[in-house]
Amino acid sequence: MHLMDKNPLSADFRLGFLGAGQLARMSGLQAFRYGIQVGVFSDRPENEPVQFMTPHSQSGSFSSSDDLASFAGTCDVLTLENEFIDSDILARAQEESGTPIYPSPQTFALIENKLIEKKTFEEAGIDVTPYALIGDEDALESFGATHGWPYLLKSSKGGYDGFGNETVHQLEDAREAFDKLGGHDGHDIIAEAFVDFTHELAVQVARNETGHVVYPCCETVQENHICVALKTPAPVAPAIQEKAREIAVHATEAIDGKGLFAFEFFLTPEGKLLLNESAPRPHNSGHYTIEGCVTSQFENHVRAVMGLPLGATDLRKPAVAMINLLGTDQRDAQIDHALASLQASDGHLHVYGKLDSRPGRKMAHYTLLGNEMESTYKKAREVTRAIRI
Amino acid sequence: MHLMDKNPLSADFRLGFLGAGQLARMSGLQAFRYGIQVGVFSDRPENEPVQFMTPHSQSGSFSSSDDLASFAGTCDVLTLENEFIDSDILARAQEESGTPIYPSPQTFALIENKLIEKKTFEEAGIDVTPYALIGDEDALESFGATHGWPYLLKSSKGGYDGFGNETVHQLEDAREAFDKLGGHDGHDIIAEAFVDFTHELAVQVARNETGHVVYPCCETVQENHICVALKTPAPVAPAIQEKAREIAVHATEAIDGKGLFAFEFFLTPEGKLLLNESAPRPHNSGHYTIEGCVTSQFENHVRAVMGLPLGATDLRKPAVAMINLLGTDQRDAQIDHALASLQASDGHLHVYGKLDSRPGRKMAHYTLLGNEMESTYKKAREVTRAIRI
Repeated sequence: MHLMDKNPLSADFRLGFLGAGQLARMSGLQAFRYGIQVGVFSDRPENEPVQFMTPHSQSGSFSSSDDLASFAGTCDVLTLENEFIDSDILARAQEESGTPIYPSPQTFALIENKLIEKKTFEEAGIDVTPYALIGDEDALESFGATHGWPYLLKSSKGGYDGFGNETVHQLEDAREAFDKLGGHDGHDIIAEAFVDFTHELAVQVARNETGHVVYPCCETVQENHICVALKTPAPVAPAIQEKAREIAVHATEAIDGKGLFAFEFFLTPEGKLLLNESAPRPHNSGHYTIEGCVTSQFENHVRAVMGLPLGATDLRKPAVAMINLLGTDQRDAQIDHALASLQASDGHLHVYGKLDSRPGRKMAHYTLLGNEMESTYKKAREVTRAIRI
Repeated sequence: MHLMDKNPLSADFRLGFLGAGQLARMSGLQAFRYGIQVGVFSDRPENEPVQFMTPHSQSGSFSSSDDLASFAGTCDVLTLENEFIDSDILARAQEESGTPIYPSPQTFALIENKLIEKKTFEEAGIDVTPYALIGDEDALESFGATHGWPYLLKSSKGGYDGFGNETVHQLEDAREAFDKLGGHDGHDIIAEAFVDFTHELAVQVARNETGHVVYPCCETVQENHICVALKTPAPVAPAIQEKAREIAVHATEAIDGKGLFAFEFFLTPEGKLLLNESAPRPHNSGHYTIEGCVTSQFENHVRAVMGLPLGATDLRKPAVAMINLLGTDQRDAQIDHALASLQASDGHLHVYGKLDSRPGRKMAHYTLLGNEMESTYKKAREVTRAIRI
């Protein structure tokens, strides 16, 4: 049933996570239910969320293939929870240790850089947000002339949740942002047109040698470039949802993905879907799947990298709302005023175990299942409104 | 919202488990989703299931209140996963450390011994299986004369899964069993009549200061005194299910239970319910609740001892079947031939992380959700039939 030399359903099988945040934590909890061991490699000194749930923890540098290979040698397979490690470092760690990494370094190489990512998906026939590599300051002006102001400038690597992104309204802004993002220090900077859209949508896909499964299409509700909530299924026509799911599967195949992948789309007023971002790992847009779907994105992540058959993605109820609970205060992490959220029937609180809270930091999330979207979403917001973290 | 001095939803809050087996492991995984820390105290040297999922692990003796108090001092609250620690040792550990234990030593004292347990529930007006304390060998004969042969002899403490139980068919058997169970070494031995029954049923209750919740009534399918499967809801009249749930709540109140409690019943051909066993902890009969109910017994166990409001117990689908996967071989633990079980839609495999397998040992379980009981149960048995552990 398995494709590795060793049966992954062995009590001494160890799945290693590169990165120790909430995504690895939620995947790791699913690894435990298969009776296996969890290892974690963190680039931070200590006290990361996964380090509280395993005795097998190691620290080192994401830019050292030796550090990674040394950790890899203690594991049977490795996986990722972020995009902070270069694909060539991953490839070297894999070669030095002999421990497979999924998603593979080859897959990762096709999407690790925003420029390469866009080219990869364009070549696969997928529509992406209009963009250009900004080689020098002149290009800043011409991009604005062609696609209109404002537009986005992005560092081609390492950005997430709006960090590494700058909205520029005029040439002066653009010059400042280009400099701030490292354009004069040799960083690739890309410009992206502001797309007129009615909804931001997301879809997750799990894929391995046994096949693939695709999750329902959800809407991501954004404030200040940060996802604050999800609605599943997305309140758009079923044909649009289906199209987004098809593109997501096609995109996963285009990078020969093994693991769990997330894709974010803009839906334009004309009904066109533009691929905006991809992530080779479980993603905030799939947090609703823990209770909302028969098999969560985290469980299918684990199944995929273990080479096991993938689980069904059907929704458990007609409407699933998810609220991101961001830090409200700078303090030792604790959740106050969660009573209403815990009392709501079919409401589910997930706390990530970060020791320190600060405003805007992703600390927890809350999922509410219901029979109708707008009332479910409204209730989810209401019962979480008083929460302080 | 919380009733302890410290907010239990704090990242440094630590829930300690006395016992490191699969029940503590499955509860511990739920503790992690609330962002807290898990500690474990084991009476075995190493490599117990929970010890693989926390850096906070300690070993010692269940009969030493000092060992327990030393562990308790590292935790904010303690809970149990078995009945192997005397209530007076628990009380002393609680007093020495100042760390609360739930269920409380007082609750535990009312049910730790089979004789006391039966008296406690009888006094609460609950029908129990006919029994008698066997003071000497003469009593063996008179019990058989009154209640008929065969009957059961049980050591009043420490038995589970049929260990510590002996079926006796005649006086000679009874004498041998009395001796084997320690009747001549001062152990309390009780006789229990064989009850004519149509079904064995079970119900779980979670209870704390915020209220209580009661789970659906399930049927436990037994072979050789070991639970091999569950059917939920139990295939008996709704009025019988409701009655079992009422008794379970009443029994929990009778012992002022704070935590998660499980109750097993015999249903007689006349439709009478006799309480057979109780457990002050998550129980095998509630494993189906992980996917089968909105909130699992393990999550409500954690919520109850943390002083949080309890979660809804509604069934997710009309029929839930659970199969215990017992060890088939003496070997390093691994699961072979699980493909069909993993491929079944809404089928859920849970492996406990024990390193060694042996025939009959509880190693894993499998839950299948469906729309109709008999077909769901049949399919669950079919897709797990080939599994070797």
